Parts: sequence; C-alpha cells; structure tokens
Amino acid sequence: MLNNFAIDLAAIQTAATRIANQVIKTPVVSAPLIDVESGAELFFKCENLQHIGAFKARGACNAVACLDEQQAAAGVVTHSSGNHAAALARAAALRGIAAHIVMPRNSASVKIDAVRGYGVEPTFCEPNAESRQATADEVAAKTGATFVHPFNNANVMAGQGTVALELLQQADRLDVIVVPVGGGGLLAGTLVAVKSINPRIKVYAAEPEWADDAFRSMKSGKIESPERYDSIADGLRTPLGTLTFPIVHQLVDGILLASESAIESATRTLILRGKLVVEPSGAVPLAAILQNRNLFSGTRVGVIISGGNIDPTELARLAGPAISV
Amino acid sequence: MLNNFAIDLAAIQTAATRIANQVIKTPVVSAPLIDVESGAELFFKCENLQHIGAFKARGACNAVACLDEQQAAAGVVTHSSGNHAAALARAAALRGIAAHIVMPRNSASVKIDAVRGYGVEPTFCEPNAESRQATADEVAAKTGATFVHPFNNANVMAGQGTVALELLQQADRLDVIVVPVGGGGLLAGTLVAVKSINPRIKVYAAEPEWADDAFRSMKSGKIESPERYDSIADGLRTPLGTLTFPIVHQLVDGILLASESAIESATRTLILRGKLVVEPSGAVPLAAILQNRNLFSGTRVGVIISGGNIDPTELARLAGPAISV
Repeated sequence: MLNNFAIDLAAIQTAATRIANQVIKTPVVSAPLIDVESGAELFFKCENLQHIGAFKARGACNAVACLDEQQAAAGVVTHSSGNHAAALARAAALRGIAAHIVMPRNSASVKIDAVRGYGVEPTFCEPNAESRQATADEVAAKTGATFVHPFNNANVMAGQGTVALELLQQADRLDVIVVPVGGGGLLAGTLVAVKSINPRIKVYAAEPEWADDAFRSMKSGKIESPERYDSIADGLRTPLGTLTFPIVHQLVDGILLASESAIESATRTLILRGKLVVEPSGAVPLAAILQNRNLFSGTRVGVIISGGNIDPTELARLAGPAISV
Repeated sequence: MLNNFAIDLAAIQTAATRIANQVIKTPVVSAPLIDVESGAELFFKCENLQHIGAFKARGACNAVACLDEQQAAAGVVTHSSGNHAAALARAAALRGIAAHIVMPRNSASVKIDAVRGYGVEPTFCEPNAESRQATADEVAAKTGATFVHPFNNANVMAGQGTVALELLQQADRLDVIVVPVGGGGLLAGTLVAVKSINPRIKVYAAEPEWADDAFRSMKSGKIESPERYDSIADGLRTPLGTLTFPIVHQLVDGILLASESAIESATRTLILRGKLVVEPSGAVPLAAILQNRNLFSGTRVGVIISGGNIDPTELARLAGPAISV
C-alpha cells in the first residue's frame, strides 16, 4: 500500500541516520495544566527547540546531504519567506556549499536576518508567486544550483518524517498524533513513518479554517487551493503538493479545522501554561484538540509543535496582558 | 567533609525515589544561538517545565512525603508569595492532606490563583515579614500543622537536590554548573549532589547585584541580609538560611553577580532565541554567564532554569517589540 508513494519508511530511517549530527533530537514534554484543560494526556514534540526554531531544519539537511558532489558544487536554490529559507541556508553552510535564497522584498526582517545569520545574502523578488518562481528559475539557470522545494521534494519529506520516528521512540502507547498541515511535507513524513510502524495509531492533521485547502482536498479527491491567505498561522497557507497529496489522501485519519481565535488562544496557552514559545502555526494542533475535546478524551496524544519563530510583536499581543480570546 | 551538613547524597537519592511519581523528569535542552552568543556549550535544565512551573515542586513533595501519618493528618503550613506556595498546596493535595498557605494580601493574583488551582484558599496576612510569620505561627498553633519552610528545611533541600542528580545523568562531561541562589535550597542541594558525585565539576551560584547577600555572606563568613528588595528576580531576594549557609560557604566555587539589565536581556534571549518561557529569576544564571564569558569559554555548562512563572505583563515588556536592553 505504501509503495507507490514518493517516500517509504526506509527513506525516513536513512534520513534519520544521515542528519543525526546536524539536527537536535528535540524533547517530548508534558504540560499538566494543558492536560487538565484538554481532558487528554498530551506529549508535545518540541520542534520549536530545533535548529532554526522549526522542523524545517531536518528536510533541508537531508536534501542537501543527498546531493552528489557535482550537484553540491553548484549549490542550492529555493524561494521562501519562512522557516525553509533559514533551514536551507544553514544546511548549505554546514556542507560548505552555496545557497541562493529568493525572498519577497517585504519579508519580515527577522526572517531575513535569520538567513543572513547563516552567511547568505537573500536574493530579493517581488512579493508574488510568479516573481518568486521566475527569480528562482533565473538563479538556477545561471548557477546550475539544485532547486530544493520546501515540501514537494522526496528528500525533504523523508527528513521531516524523522520527527515522528523520534516521537514514537520517546512517547510510548500513543493513541493518536496530531500534526499541522500546510504543504504537507511534515504530515506526509509523519503518516508514512507512523502507518508503517504502527498503523493503529491515528494521525490527524490540523489546519486553520481560514486555510482549509487540505480539508477540501480530502473531500474533492484533488489538490485544492487556499481561498484566503490571512490566517495567523502563516506557515500553513500553502496548498498540498503533487508528492504530498497522495500520501495524505490515502493515509490521514482526518483533518481537523481550527478557528483563528482557537489558534490565538492555543498559542497563549502553550506560552503561559506550557512555558513553550511557539509560533501560531505550531499551536494549530492544540487548537484543533481543544476544539474537538470529545475526540481525544482520555487518550494519549502526540502533538507536534512545528516551530517557535514568533515575532516579538505577536508574542506580546498573544501572551501579554491585554488580549481577550 | 560533607557529613556535618543538613543533607547528604543519600538523602537526595532517597528523595528522588520518593518523589519520582510526583514530579517531571524535566528535559535538558540546547539552544545553539545562545551557545554562539556565550562561546560555551550550554545545557539548560528546564525546571520551568516542572509541575507548578518551578523546581519548588520537588522539595515540597519530599517534605510532605516525609511526614508520618499523625503529622500528615494535621496538615502543613507555610508562608510564601511565590512558587513554594503553589508547590506545597499541590504536594498536600496529592497526599490528600490540608495545606495552609499564608500569603500577603498584595500577592500577584496569578500566584493566588495558582494556589486556589490546587483547592487551597490562601490565608491572607499583611505584606511584611512579621505578619507572615505571626499568621503562620497562629495557624500552626491552632491546627497542629507542620511548618514547611521554603528552603531552610532538610527535606526541602534534599528534594531540590534531585534537579542536579537528573542533570548529571542527562548531560555528560559537564565542566561547570550554574545555579540561581535565593535562600539557597536549590544551591545547597545541587552542591551536595554534585560535589559528592563528581567534585571536579565546578558549581557557581548566580545572584542579582541588587540582592547580593549570598555574595557578601561568602566574604564575611556569616549570613548577610539583602540590602534592597527590588531586583526583578523576585525569587532571589531572600537571605541564606542556617541550614543552607554552611553548605554554600564550604562547597560553592564562586558567586557570580548579574546586573538588572543583564537579567532582563538574558530573560529576553531565553524566550526569543531559546524558545523557553522563563521568569527573570530563572534567567539569572545565563545573565551571569554572559557577564563572565571568559570564565566559561569553550566549556560544557549545565544551566539550571529554576522556573517559568512570568507575569504576562512582564513577558510582553521583556520579550515584546519595544524593549531596548
């Protein structure tokens, strides 16, 4: 059943060995006050504590490590306004090769600084999909660099699947795992890892109501696009890819939607009660759990916190004194 | 050498077994960006992820577990405006006995709510040391409850020492451990554990410049009082106790002072770069490390983050957009 997919368990296990020295085996932590609130036993897999503050470090390291010498010599290129940009810049720096990171001119300065922190000066483009792709294509044509897609790339997907491999080792007897879904790289990697190792564990994806394209894609049986792009969970505003969709469609046990206010509230809860700094995208699984308490009551739930790169202004707004959510 | 102290290694090891089911074995995490900033390899022992958000859960559980049946039937009493209040309320609730928590009327509502969260209605007193002690004495006389001091109590100290036992298991080849010092319960427990197991590991205490009583006590050879009570590190404004002082005096390798601005900056760094929600007291060790980089350059440093109970207003002020430290 799993054989027609872009990745299999062996690819994820190989990725885990390949990137072991370049990523952090992040801890799985409990938050007793949130257990009380949810009525379930939650095991938070803390990818906010990963290099570059997000799981994206894993897929980028695996993709860069998979290049042969000749490919590596020409470098890598991607376009990203988010965590994949810093992840690929870091992965390339670790191998000592060039990275070309195409970013929209209006990217958050904290994201631009993160890329510069790994010694890469971003290549700026206009803030639209056409300019991003055209600029990346141009860089690739000029330099011969290999394009590394943020999620629709088998090596990236295999790298992201290592999160679930670790979670299954670190927390036993899980009944269910909840994963955020944007482009589906983390979700597809998780599904292949979990369903290969223990298919009785349910895997739910969590998605913002305002970016419910994966939810609609499961219904229609084809890749649907987001209809709006303004969810606070900025990492999840992306449609599924051609490589991630078939895995999600066949293996996911359900897609749970979270409202914007539930996402904001879950972000605040994780920060103030869980003592974990998370970005709103990383709080979407908890938001979905708290909106669907009956589904999780009394169960042991693995919750993947995908990242912690929250802007100080957002942090103060969501976890400070004034908010009422 | 260690034999004249209120606790020994065996007491700490026994405490660890006794409280194993009541406390969290908190993770030790890395923060690569902070390693770069410090020039050292830092291993953060995350007691901010402990029950009640601080290491105080350990000592309180051990003290309550050590009561015999007759003592337990009469309950426990303490005075505290901080984490020990919630810790003792929780420990008593777990054993099913009464806890009397004397708190100043002007205690932070978040601290009062934490105590109420464990089913205990605080006994309020006037906000001064005399009223606190008198009210606690009155409750003890009326109820027969056992007074559990927040640090000057051998069972409490032994419980706090379990933090270091775990840290030594979780992070190997440490050169030095840095611990915050207030009343000295955590510091004394750490010193006895570490110096008994591996005396070559240095243990430094970290203390606010504005609450430098332990620093002065080491110089004068007797317990000195704080001269001001306005450090942002509100958990560390306390003088050493008669049981903690001899241990600290004999075993500590040094006391490092941290300025208020260094404490604020370290709090911000741990939140925004480390993705860990800490209270200012818990950031004092990192502040001391960053103020004394030459002492730690190239070494492997265990850093005990004592707690994460930061008020939302403080969180927003210290980690939000407006601060310039």
